Amino acid sequence: MSASRAALRLQQVASHTGAPAPLRVAVIGSGNWGTAIAKIVAENTQDEALGFARQVNMWMFEETIDYEGRQRKLTEVFNERKQNVKYMKGIDCPDNLVAMSDLTKVAEVSDVYIIVIPHQFVDSICRQMLGHVSRSAVALSCIKGIHVDKDGVTLFSNVISQRLGIYCGALSGANIASEVAEEKYSETTIAFNPAHGNSFPHADQRMDTARMKSLFQRPYFRIGTIDDVAGVSLAGALKNIVAVAAGLVDGLGYGDNTKAAIMRIGLVEMLHFGKVFFGNEVRTATFFEHSCGIADLITSCSGGRNRKCAMEFVKTGKSMEQLEKELLQGQKLQGAATSKEVHELLTNRNMVGQFPLFTAVYRIVYEGESAEKLWLMLGSKS
Amino acid sequence: MSASRAALRLQQVASHTGAPAPLRVAVIGSGNWGTAIAKIVAENTQDEALGFARQVNMWMFEETIDYEGRQRKLTEVFNERKQNVKYMKGIDCPDNLVAMSDLTKVAEVSDVYIIVIPHQFVDSICRQMLGHVSRSAVALSCIKGIHVDKDGVTLFSNVISQRLGIYCGALSGANIASEVAEEKYSETTIAFNPAHGNSFPHADQRMDTARMKSLFQRPYFRIGTIDDVAGVSLAGALKNIVAVAAGLVDGLGYGDNTKAAIMRIGLVEMLHFGKVFFGNEVRTATFFEHSCGIADLITSCSGGRNRKCAMEFVKTGKSMEQLEKELLQGQKLQGAATSKEVHELLTNRNMVGQFPLFTAVYRIVYEGESAEKLWLMLGSKS
Repeated sequence: MSASRAALRLQQVASHTGAPAPLRVAVIGSGNWGTAIAKIVAENTQDEALGFARQVNMWMFEETIDYEGRQRKLTEVFNERKQNVKYMKGIDCPDNLVAMSDLTKVAEVSDVYIIVIPHQFVDSICRQMLGHVSRSAVALSCIKGIHVDKDGVTLFSNVISQRLGIYCGALSGANIASEVAEEKYSETTIAFNPAHGNSFPHADQRMDTARMKSLFQRPYFRIGTIDDVAGVSLAGALKNIVAVAAGLVDGLGYGDNTKAAIMRIGLVEMLHFGKVFFGNEVRTATFFEHSCGIADLITSCSGGRNRKCAMEFVKTGKSMEQLEKELLQGQKLQGAATSKEVHELLTNRNMVGQFPLFTAVYRIVYEGESAEKLWLMLGSKS
Repeated sequence: MSASRAALRLQQVASHTGAPAPLRVAVIGSGNWGTAIAKIVAENTQDEALGFARQVNMWMFEETIDYEGRQRKLTEVFNERKQNVKYMKGIDCPDNLVAMSDLTKVAEVSDVYIIVIPHQFVDSICRQMLGHVSRSAVALSCIKGIHVDKDGVTLFSNVISQRLGIYCGALSGANIASEVAEEKYSETTIAFNPAHGNSFPHADQRMDTARMKSLFQRPYFRIGTIDDVAGVSLAGALKNIVAVAAGLVDGLGYGDNTKAAIMRIGLVEMLHFGKVFFGNEVRTATFFEHSCGIADLITSCSGGRNRKCAMEFVKTGKSMEQLEKELLQGQKLQGAATSKEVHELLTNRNMVGQFPLFTAVYRIVYEGESAEKLWLMLGSKS
């Protein structure tokens, strides 16, 4: 069914019953964070009063796994057991969450896309969805990270919006996926307001900020809502640089005062970066008052792999590349990579001096500067 | 020498040499934080260019101690060894820091009072100093805490100011005393501006914000300056309530998401409390951007005795009174006591519902509410 036919069908259902057709939700992605998110969404769509279709479709990249001695498809095992046995083992998902491996089909039968994929797949996912998306649909990006090069900063929510021709908001917060899946009390921040700026006149007007919040709000998962899509996305990416600095301090054994100072300075630089590159679109409160800012920073600087690798970097003297191999199974250390991208951008704009902490992290990780000099590099700014 | 004679003497010296007499600094108090502060100040007054008298007098409550097998006065041992062997053992202080046990004499020969004493001694110290203080003198309170009862909130900086008839600012930050003494990189916040509001026309105009900053700024101790004396003092007291909540969460084993949420909610409630009781005198940035706010909160929720006692409270089921006795050698757990005082005030003003986290801490510690209900008490506010 094409996008326009899907929209027509939706209208027919609505006019036939007299009541608007319930909004159909898809979760695009099924890693550990995708599964935790899909579980929450499917719990909420069981409440008919919220106006969503009960069934939530989760697009799952098909894999063959060894399960109970047999080769099985991951989607089939999920739909039998309602567990993502590969990426979120032991967590039971609701019966109304259905795994599907056909992305175009998922796209066609959905009005709301919750996108939770690794950022390197954004391009190819959007390409596959294009032509199967109704122009009344909306999206919410739960993708961590931003694209930075020497020319500027690009938000993945903007990439999705441009590629699919629909509004895309963002969700980010102090959310370690396993803790959310275990229903330990957490908060998150959603920036979602399709009416803002009036750029998407075809967006289904029922999907406003409050409706999106209702899709995620649980007794154990509390939602704050704001308008600032850029701030949410920037905070979720830039905090990784600060977490590297926190790990350096922990590795040096400098104590709680120093670490708190690093986190404070880091948060102020994060906001400053947002203001420089996105102007008043970025709000101060996003960084200082919401889960996506201060709380996510605290979580990342307390635990997390950026901090851990940076600690080992100081303690062992190994290069960050070596530690990535040893500790992250080939994944990139986001905080280090982001510090490099940001440094290239700041150098190009002649703004290095405005960001002493970001710069210090880059110099220590990539230019062989001594970690002991971290606080001297900050202290020079009095 | 009386206060007026002291002022006259100062003028004579100034007119005789043609240059203004250097400002004479006293540190009132010599516990661990007082000693760390006095060490910093005395390091800075060695730089003649800053315009302070080289010698810094530290008022020390006289005690007889057993030192190298003999009964000795603490002041004498300090002045011989330049170590506070009772409260900051192993830390060498500069030669120009002199311990004195005569409070009235210290008051008379000083233009700047840095006051670092336990809050319960503020009344008696001010009473002893009164009549020996020049009206051109100024003070800076490094006292942690606020006085709260059902009628309102009183800042110790205001108490000092009213009792001594001079301007009093405040200093607070993420400052574990031993780490500062060991010269580990730290930051602090000073709110000091005698010209603000023009209430102290006799204050020595040389002692402005920049001059006070110069008295504390060290390569390892970085100073942020603001005007908001109330905010600095409130943040340093209210964060202890949040640290109790953080300890409860740690005791329950709820994980990093929950703890970060508690800290975020706590910081927002701290600011709200300030705005309710001090209006626009209190600035948002004091809590979110400065060391006295976010950074001190992080330090207290990571370590510190409030967090530790609250953890044990959950794990052992013992009462807070019992844990105070066992863990704090008779000291009061500040966070618990503050939560009670704040609760009485909020009840009296019919404002309990506006502060769910502060209220939850009070109910759990004093009214037998289950710690597991902490997040339910917060979650109800959607």
